[in-house]
Amino acid sequence: MTAPIRSIPDVLDAYNAAIADVIARYLPDGQPDAHLYDPLRAFTVGQGKGLRPALCLAACEAFGGSTADALLSAAAVELLHAAFLIHDDIEDGSEKRRGASALHVQHGVPIALNVGDALAVLCFRPLLDNVDVLGSRLSRLVLAEFQRTMERTVEGQAIELGWRHDNATALTPVDYLDMILRKTCAYTTILPLRVGALIGSRGSADLDAIAEFGFLLGAAFQIHDDLLDLRSDEPYGKDILGDIREGKRTLMVIHFLRAARSEDRERIVAFLGRPRESRSDDDVRAVLSLLRDAGSLDFAENYAAELVEQADVAFDAAFAPCAPSPALDFLRDVVPFMTARTA
Amino acid sequence: MTAPIRSIPDVLDAYNAAIADVIARYLPDGQPDAHLYDPLRAFTVGQGKGLRPALCLAACEAFGGSTADALLSAAAVELLHAAFLIHDDIEDGSEKRRGASALHVQHGVPIALNVGDALAVLCFRPLLDNVDVLGSRLSRLVLAEFQRTMERTVEGQAIELGWRHDNATALTPVDYLDMILRKTCAYTTILPLRVGALIGSRGSADLDAIAEFGFLLGAAFQIHDDLLDLRSDEPYGKDILGDIREGKRTLMVIHFLRAARSEDRERIVAFLGRPRESRSDDDVRAVLSLLRDAGSLDFAENYAAELVEQADVAFDAAFAPCAPSPALDFLRDVVPFMTARTA
Repeated sequence: MTAPIRSIPDVLDAYNAAIADVIARYLPDGQPDAHLYDPLRAFTVGQGKGLRPALCLAACEAFGGSTADALLSAAAVELLHAAFLIHDDIEDGSEKRRGASALHVQHGVPIALNVGDALAVLCFRPLLDNVDVLGSRLSRLVLAEFQRTMERTVEGQAIELGWRHDNATALTPVDYLDMILRKTCAYTTILPLRVGALIGSRGSADLDAIAEFGFLLGAAFQIHDDLLDLRSDEPYGKDILGDIREGKRTLMVIHFLRAARSEDRERIVAFLGRPRESRSDDDVRAVLSLLRDAGSLDFAENYAAELVEQADVAFDAAFAPCAPSPALDFLRDVVPFMTARTA
Repeated sequence: MTAPIRSIPDVLDAYNAAIADVIARYLPDGQPDAHLYDPLRAFTVGQGKGLRPALCLAACEAFGGSTADALLSAAAVELLHAAFLIHDDIEDGSEKRRGASALHVQHGVPIALNVGDALAVLCFRPLLDNVDVLGSRLSRLVLAEFQRTMERTVEGQAIELGWRHDNATALTPVDYLDMILRKTCAYTTILPLRVGALIGSRGSADLDAIAEFGFLLGAAFQIHDDLLDLRSDEPYGKDILGDIREGKRTLMVIHFLRAARSEDRERIVAFLGRPRESRSDDDVRAVLSLLRDAGSLDFAENYAAELVEQADVAFDAAFAPCAPSPALDFLRDVVPFMTARTA
């Protein structure tokens, strides 16, 4: 598995080179500039790892389509991702993003919120233009995929915000999986894979099987992402230990709340119940130590590893009709990459 | 003109009774409830004056369509309006809306922001379902109208936020008209009228002429709305004198900054340059007195009256092909209502 894993970033780069021009074409560079399109372009152009559009293009190719058929949809996925990040950072009070200050830290909440709205709106432009490439039936199906996904995402976001709002502490790993299914997996993996497969197969692919694979892939991705947040003492583009500081109910925290000794549990419950501003660096690092000592990081790592194994199985079912191709190889290799990546 | 003006609220009620069921049908009532769909429904169901959907249905009828053809689009207009209000109130720091505390005051910014996102997403559902009523070509044209309008709205919002962010004081009435053309008129009047005409005429209506009429109608609406904000000592569902407190560059403020004696001008410039929290009730009332004494309220009232006259002329051009009908009468009568309404 070593060689394919190493090559994933190169494949991501290659796919993203193809959509960079498309994205640039859909981002206005006119007025109003200083308070809308300049920050919008700075946040979007050349940013991001490009996992989502790559999944879309690869799924299209794997099902026999050409990347040209899915370029507009893949660009829309990336614009939607940028829109969600901006609103997510406002809602979470995150301070860093993409190696810089979060957009609302740079420009204030009002302007950042509006830039997020603009990106969500702009993502529908390539989707409307899809009719010229895909015809009316297929382009409408793609639009419907996006619309349903966006509903799932705001639902997932509401669940997570509600947990923090209500200071929920009685959560299970199943609650967590349901939340990230909607909040993360829906648009990060399921949407691009389903849309790519839909386009590549001209509607004949089994989209439920694709969604199952996408869920497992996306869940592994999210858990590993949260682990990176805890394991990194080096900045990797986001706040260091930002998840703990924000009181996020990660799988690690949920495991801890169920497994820890009651005196340790009380300490974290008290920490979660305090306002974010009162959580010091020392508090945050103490929480990390408690999580580590209770085996919560190991639990989450094993959980993600199991999801990867299940994703391998689901991959075979989802892509059974596909002939061998480099795109199919990429999609198979991306599975272990979800928990192997370091950024 | 007295009789038709009195009847406008009744016509609005009749049109809105027709779309209330449609809107209710598109608002999920499931999970997550407390932090998403409950506040979403409370904000949306039975709220609002219903001007926007009524314009859409009436324009459809005036051009020979039936209201059934435009119901889904009219419902989408109202959902979009609700979405914009929620984000607008967060961005402006408004405290009251629809006779209650603003949604972000009730639920906090994160949850309110997400409810606004949900409404913007939900408005695409009836638009996608339009295909069953209107066919693929017409439903796609309607979708494109919404998409372009949403772009204009975020642009208008960015312009207004930029004015406050930069503490702009060298603005002209033309700057103001350009801003409200994008921020208010685009979705309040132009979108519903164009979409209604598009549907009713099956694509043959002159949409540019409709847009011109919609712009004049919407500009009169917005200026009168801002005057209501200043003239009302009674609560009318929003913050009393909220526009002044928020530092909004209304036509009255813009007139004042150009016309006032320099010492008075300096007082308002200083007021606008201060943080919102430091603007006391006395400050706000003093600004109102200055505006009134400088004739800025009269200026804006006259300006709106001229727009109404121009809208009358534009109406004849826009609806020239239409046979007489109650819907056409409503659209003609709605013109003077823009500056006659008291709420």
